[in-house]
Amino acid sequence: MSTIFELGEKQSLSLALADLKPVESASIGSGDDAALMSSEDGNYLVSSDTMIEGNDFKFEFSQAFDLGWKAIATNYADIAAMGGLPTGAVVAIAVPATTKIEWLKKFVQGLQQAADHFAPGTGIVGGDLATSDHSFISVTVFGNLNGNAAVVRSGAKIGDGVYVGGTLGHAACGLDLLNHPDPQFAKSYNQFVDIQLRPNPPIALGMQAAAAGATAMMDLSDGLSSDATKLAQASSLSIDIESSKLIGYEAVLEQAAQSIAADARPWVLHGGEDHSLLATFSEGAEVPRGFKKIGICKQAEFPLTLDGAPIEPSGWDSVKVD
Amino acid sequence: MSTIFELGEKQSLSLALADLKPVESASIGSGDDAALMSSEDGNYLVSSDTMIEGNDFKFEFSQAFDLGWKAIATNYADIAAMGGLPTGAVVAIAVPATTKIEWLKKFVQGLQQAADHFAPGTGIVGGDLATSDHSFISVTVFGNLNGNAAVVRSGAKIGDGVYVGGTLGHAACGLDLLNHPDPQFAKSYNQFVDIQLRPNPPIALGMQAAAAGATAMMDLSDGLSSDATKLAQASSLSIDIESSKLIGYEAVLEQAAQSIAADARPWVLHGGEDHSLLATFSEGAEVPRGFKKIGICKQAEFPLTLDGAPIEPSGWDSVKVD
Repeated sequence: MSTIFELGEKQSLSLALADLKPVESASIGSGDDAALMSSEDGNYLVSSDTMIEGNDFKFEFSQAFDLGWKAIATNYADIAAMGGLPTGAVVAIAVPATTKIEWLKKFVQGLQQAADHFAPGTGIVGGDLATSDHSFISVTVFGNLNGNAAVVRSGAKIGDGVYVGGTLGHAACGLDLLNHPDPQFAKSYNQFVDIQLRPNPPIALGMQAAAAGATAMMDLSDGLSSDATKLAQASSLSIDIESSKLIGYEAVLEQAAQSIAADARPWVLHGGEDHSLLATFSEGAEVPRGFKKIGICKQAEFPLTLDGAPIEPSGWDSVKVD
Repeated sequence: MSTIFELGEKQSLSLALADLKPVESASIGSGDDAALMSSEDGNYLVSSDTMIEGNDFKFEFSQAFDLGWKAIATNYADIAAMGGLPTGAVVAIAVPATTKIEWLKKFVQGLQQAADHFAPGTGIVGGDLATSDHSFISVTVFGNLNGNAAVVRSGAKIGDGVYVGGTLGHAACGLDLLNHPDPQFAKSYNQFVDIQLRPNPPIALGMQAAAAGATAMMDLSDGLSSDATKLAQASSLSIDIESSKLIGYEAVLEQAAQSIAADARPWVLHGGEDHSLLATFSEGAEVPRGFKKIGICKQAEFPLTLDGAPIEPSGWDSVKVD
């Protein structure tokens, strides 16, 4: 098996990219200086995210396929969180020169299969391959609104219901299982480990929420407490979460939590990386199936309360990585 | 002066981003999950490029401002090379946790001033800040065609003239001056060092070329021999460069070359990073001022010839970095 150093950039890319499919909304794809994308209503969404080895992923936990999948899933979630449908992405990756071409092929397969899964017909329209002792993956993603208005964080109004679409705490549970010295627990509860390694955000719900008139929305990448605080602050109000509404989210994690003597509540309340959707809808809105109500927008002194008592966000800061 | 680790991501960004201006074609800028861009004709160009410490830049040579400038200049050149006008960019950067906030502010000023210089009203619509011992800068750029057709690499026809817009060999000369053990030469010929550190590609020429009906175009990032070979191969023909047409490009570099006992010809023929434009126009086209004819598209066995004799491309491979 050749390394990418032995093959050089051109041949490495042509081998690795063989598994990519054409992208519907790209009339010119990779190979030229830029890709040409189309948007029927003349508006397009753009978002970017970077995964750094050590901080955001570890090669000992993540297979190449998983990393490709996660790179697309997390970025597509940002488009969904604005009410858009993803159309494509550009991917810049740096890996050590000793990386096997087979690794790169698996990574690209992960990208493509995630694109197929979350938004068929979409995929990779450009990218960059470089060598570095310290690996990273930087993705920029595009999306169309198809005539809907973008749903921003700042639009929530007092009295709106606060809803979650998708899971809470699964990725955090998976990470704690992976970090446990005894590997049997990660095997026993692999459904949560899978979400940590290959997140499954509810991409199609984003556009449904926009069409249903969601007043504000964002994706839950840093954790419910941290992200709900951001949404509340952007909308200049307070979000009160009803703890009884979290019980269902905790119940599915309970067994896994007990197995490693952990507590499910912090995973649900503070755990990030499920990339579910946090949205607000005004009373009487026809909230799409898939969203569950967990609280309400109020006027209060603190941005976030649980059953009326202030709670501190406990989030993820990409600069303050240990 | 605080480090970004002491400040955290949120405060670091809010301090560093204070110098950013609103972007005309972005109706929602950074701060939400995605930015919302507009394109009057419903088409938009997308390109991405990554600069890695050690491979693509060195902190000992490049100031923060220079890196910001270069990140925008090189990416805007990719949009120009398709015949488009840049509208904005997202920038992901990873730097050591010990980086001073002042460094980050200067970097952002470089981004903004380059955007102002190359395409007023454009700028940064999103990004990402992370810490890593090994630094990198990953930029994705967007552009509009304003109704023109995109100019690809594969459109050149036999008989078309081959043109260069912008300088050749300046950045390569600058790099050799910087690498010379005696720093006085870099000081004496700082105009070439400046192009290596803060490239000045002819961005507006790209859209002019598209409007004038350029049959093919690309930016000269890897060097004339390497990039002309790529354009010829993409168009399934051969490019013959007339050596007499390179004399003018060599003449301006002659004194600097002599000062360090170097040869100007390889800089002009093989040196990359000026990010000038290589374009083909059919006979009789009204070629925009700023393009100079250097050769012709022919049918021949080899993709690239100089005065009829085959030459090997000598380029840059981002994987085979020494």
